[in-house]
Amino acid sequence: MASAAATRINIPARHARAAFMKKGKRIKVINTHGTQVVDCWALNADNMTEFMSMEHCRVSLERYRFRARDTLITNRRRPIVRILEDTSGGAHDTLLAACDRYRYELLGCTGYHRNCTDNFWEAMVAAGSKPEELPSPFNLWQNTPVESDGVIKPNPPVSNKGDHIVMSAEMDLVICLSACPQDITSICGNRPRNAHFEIC
Amino acid sequence: MASAAATRINIPARHARAAFMKKGKRIKVINTHGTQVVDCWALNADNMTEFMSMEHCRVSLERYRFRARDTLITNRRRPIVRILEDTSGGAHDTLLAACDRYRYELLGCTGYHRNCTDNFWEAMVAAGSKPEELPSPFNLWQNTPVESDGVIKPNPPVSNKGDHIVMSAEMDLVICLSACPQDITSICGNRPRNAHFEIC
Repeated sequence: MASAAATRINIPARHARAAFMKKGKRIKVINTHGTQVVDCWALNADNMTEFMSMEHCRVSLERYRFRARDTLITNRRRPIVRILEDTSGGAHDTLLAACDRYRYELLGCTGYHRNCTDNFWEAMVAAGSKPEELPSPFNLWQNTPVESDGVIKPNPPVSNKGDHIVMSAEMDLVICLSACPQDITSICGNRPRNAHFEIC
Repeated sequence: MASAAATRINIPARHARAAFMKKGKRIKVINTHGTQVVDCWALNADNMTEFMSMEHCRVSLERYRFRARDTLITNRRRPIVRILEDTSGGAHDTLLAACDRYRYELLGCTGYHRNCTDNFWEAMVAAGSKPEELPSPFNLWQNTPVESDGVIKPNPPVSNKGDHIVMSAEMDLVICLSACPQDITSICGNRPRNAHFEIC
């Protein structure tokens, strides 16, 4: 990927950014500090009732983890994103919901805590989009594998500084990326950081 | 559960039925022939944007499979259903999307094939309900565990004739149960059958 030609866009810590991608464009998402989970969504730009769906991808791939050369599909089972490169070897989560105000209340927060669900709506609206529902996210670098007994724990990250994933748009889409504000459990190394992306 | 007092309701093969349950009521879902997958949804009767959510349950339970004594939660992280009894020991799927017309087209069907997605809408509308989106289902008796290498295969059923699960309503809700029409893969033993439920 000719990243030299692309503008590097900041995803501020605890916030999200959404961007339009024409079919054929590529996005490189970068784990700048190496410890940041980035929730990722992709929605059909022309019809936001169609979106990348983890539960549909798990059927087509017959796996719960996705890796380079996988084509990710929508809730209409059409290709929306293809993973071209992934330095993590596939250590991303596809099973767990985006965090939300209710999650932080249950974790003991008494005031408002930023969260990926509200980040999604905020960033999508800022990008001029109005989805009708919140899809389950593709949680980049979230280290929550299924253990041998079926348990899923909120483990600390295993990613490295500068880890990146490159994906191509298989239809005109809007991508949304949230630098997860989780600082109660250790999935973001207890310190939410910023991340970056480039589209070219 | 005093099932003698309850009316046993048929879920016809390849079709779904939806029913209202007041908080505190119990439902017994019965795998009458022992080989039938039954997709299950539960939605808040007063606000259908709130519904039982597999991805939120996996966060709260820190497991991808649910079993007796588990409380299942909504996308607002509130209890909606509690599992009271389960003769299967937890061999249900929480990971895979409901089948739909696109799934059967990809499996080679040229004409319309009944499917759990359309069944959901059909049964909910017949019960007087109008949800805004299709939640990911709790696939009762679907034998698709995560294998040691992360693979998920559409295996034949391991359930037995008369297996049942009893759940309590933790809020006023509408439950929807679809006798899965899948007859291309072997998850329903290649022969979709009917199933039953009782509410008391």
